[in-house]
Amino acid sequence: MTIAAQMRTLAKDAKAASRKLASAEGGVRQQALLNLAGLLEQNAAAVFAANRKDLDAAQKNGLDSAKLDRLTISQGVLDSMVQGCREVAAMSDPVGEIEGMKKRPNGMLVGRMRVPLGVVAMIFESRPNAAVDAAVLCIKSGNAAILRGGSEAFHSIEALTALIHQALETAGLPRGCVQVPPTTDREAVSALLKLDEFIDVVIPRGGEGLIRAVVEQASMPVLKHYKGVCHTFVDESADLARAVVIIHNGKVQRPGTCNALECVLAHQAVAGKLLPQVAKKLGEAGVEFRCCPASLALMEPIAGVKAKAATQADWGCEFLNLTLAVKVVADLDEALEHIAQYGSNHTEAILTENYANALRFTREADASMVAVNASTRLNDGGELGLGAEVGISTTKLHAYGPMGVRELTSAKFVVLGQGQIRQ
Amino acid sequence: MTIAAQMRTLAKDAKAASRKLASAEGGVRQQALLNLAGLLEQNAAAVFAANRKDLDAAQKNGLDSAKLDRLTISQGVLDSMVQGCREVAAMSDPVGEIEGMKKRPNGMLVGRMRVPLGVVAMIFESRPNAAVDAAVLCIKSGNAAILRGGSEAFHSIEALTALIHQALETAGLPRGCVQVPPTTDREAVSALLKLDEFIDVVIPRGGEGLIRAVVEQASMPVLKHYKGVCHTFVDESADLARAVVIIHNGKVQRPGTCNALECVLAHQAVAGKLLPQVAKKLGEAGVEFRCCPASLALMEPIAGVKAKAATQADWGCEFLNLTLAVKVVADLDEALEHIAQYGSNHTEAILTENYANALRFTREADASMVAVNASTRLNDGGELGLGAEVGISTTKLHAYGPMGVRELTSAKFVVLGQGQIRQ
Repeated sequence: MTIAAQMRTLAKDAKAASRKLASAEGGVRQQALLNLAGLLEQNAAAVFAANRKDLDAAQKNGLDSAKLDRLTISQGVLDSMVQGCREVAAMSDPVGEIEGMKKRPNGMLVGRMRVPLGVVAMIFESRPNAAVDAAVLCIKSGNAAILRGGSEAFHSIEALTALIHQALETAGLPRGCVQVPPTTDREAVSALLKLDEFIDVVIPRGGEGLIRAVVEQASMPVLKHYKGVCHTFVDESADLARAVVIIHNGKVQRPGTCNALECVLAHQAVAGKLLPQVAKKLGEAGVEFRCCPASLALMEPIAGVKAKAATQADWGCEFLNLTLAVKVVADLDEALEHIAQYGSNHTEAILTENYANALRFTREADASMVAVNASTRLNDGGELGLGAEVGISTTKLHAYGPMGVRELTSAKFVVLGQGQIRQ
Repeated sequence: MTIAAQMRTLAKDAKAASRKLASAEGGVRQQALLNLAGLLEQNAAAVFAANRKDLDAAQKNGLDSAKLDRLTISQGVLDSMVQGCREVAAMSDPVGEIEGMKKRPNGMLVGRMRVPLGVVAMIFESRPNAAVDAAVLCIKSGNAAILRGGSEAFHSIEALTALIHQALETAGLPRGCVQVPPTTDREAVSALLKLDEFIDVVIPRGGEGLIRAVVEQASMPVLKHYKGVCHTFVDESADLARAVVIIHNGKVQRPGTCNALECVLAHQAVAGKLLPQVAKKLGEAGVEFRCCPASLALMEPIAGVKAKAATQADWGCEFLNLTLAVKVVADLDEALEHIAQYGSNHTEAILTENYANALRFTREADASMVAVNASTRLNDGGELGLGAEVGISTTKLHAYGPMGVRELTSAKFVVLGQGQIRQ
């Protein structure tokens, strides 16, 4: 069988399984998730061992530190997968829920019933826990999933998928609900992206190159973000001690992620106080700075700090490592203009004690999450209360921000009439 | 200037205008819609005259009756445009509204703020009132609109657009919020469909051929339905007198529309009573029938009725005229199977007095509207309470069913913190 024929069979099987999953009661789907949580805990050693194989190979192949970080299943990552399973299992079942049933003037009731999308294909690289996050949310929302990870995560995903299949079957659901192509050949991805008769949506997660390739080839809708160029604007009235903590968290806590901070915009009235503290605190954590002339003058003199003049390419750059761009701006207007020009509609934050500026920033900054006095790192399904997420969308259509259970469903109109006709 | 360059300028202008519109207060956008309602009433004669020119040309060119129906701006169509303006103006402003602000365990507030999509391109044929419906909903939701109608509606759209521009400018909004390409050349559409840097979504309305052409060429997301193959299943327990009225309304009231009834599925226990009445009542209205053997035996003998054996192509056919397919089915299972095979995810109805069957049908029929004891013709933004609509989506992503104001917005996450960071 050719790879294209193999993928067609796999996608067709996923579609058939999706109908069974959609009509299964919520309690059954919930049980599959609780089974998975238990299996992950019981089989942690096997998961770590499989992940170790991938990490050894990756180190041999010279993957950079941000990629290694994303590939690693630490105890913390495993715990958060388990917690994700239980959190999502505990959520109310979205499928079949009817929202806002209202009575029309002609007496008929009109509401919207949540329904699964059908088959969701996930194309991702590096982060093997994305496979579990995706499977969990798809099962909860009644969607079949096709999971295609990067070849560097092959053993990790294989180990995780075996547990997912066991969890499904123990709950009485077909293992076909979650499909993993048995090959790491790139042709498999191209073949899947043409199968819009079976696959309802594709969600790519990874670097901009991967995502652009998926968008170009896909015949079905794509939910995605290209990159996360996240800014934090420190306003004149900001609490500066708190600002240093938030900026440190945004840049240092996990620099390889899309919601990591890439650029600080400092109000000119506080730059003189703020930026030397930022240079010192983040410099100690190994951060290097790309500065505008005004910020360079403030940061370069601090002992041990690596700061140099920013080039044009540093504005709007997704560094994904311990590099931070820094710019002094005249006011909120200039900050919003900079964000409009260089932002990626992903995450933008303002640090301020000024009420009007806080309100204006939330309204005018165009991003999937806008935050006041909080770290950009909080743009995450778990942190925002969705449970696990299958990715972050910056396209506005269907979903804008982290995509959880609700974003994996649609809503159809339900009319309960007593003989109503169109007049 | 080439057509491609012209379209680029037009789309760029729309994007610039969309920013002004998005930041305009809701009261200003509301005033533009009230202005338009008044202008349509005051200038009805001019609109009818322009429409008359299009109708005369269309008759000369031999357009079929369904297309002529869609092209006609009758007093009723004008009244419904005016009513649409006022209904939508009276709705609360969706832009900037924050939904479901909840407190997370770490104390930060998380909500979702409605934001416009940006620039919406509408490609439609025949129905010139679609231009007003689209402009009204885009203005209300803070989106700029690019309206591209069929060449057969050229004069009608020109007259309506002049009123829209006047309504915008009187309210203090740029006329660039609503753009109409000055040419009917098809190249203009192809050029627009490549401009995803300025146009956020395209909504085609019209025949399947138009929509497939748009989907193939578009580089931005497309909200659409290909066709409306709507069924009504008459269950064993249905009130048959009411069933005849609902079926008559579904087929006859406006056969050229996507929510018109195309196929009746009659439970075998009531077919003998029901179908002769359907044959008589709809036959008098000029309906012709395409029947399965069992229904043919019941309907053909009725005096004056035009019934013939259905071919395979009649199942799943969008007739868009006074033709109705009829099939006798064994039970609800067979009806649902028929709908799964031949339906178009548009509109499906059950007529029943059986509680369990009503519930099951609403859950299992996969369509943008599922109705119990009501006409398929009610799948319409106005009827379902959305005000005017810009079309009906059957794709599940972003919108499923009629698209009103809410479907022309997205929602971004807003976080109000007091120093929260990622742990």
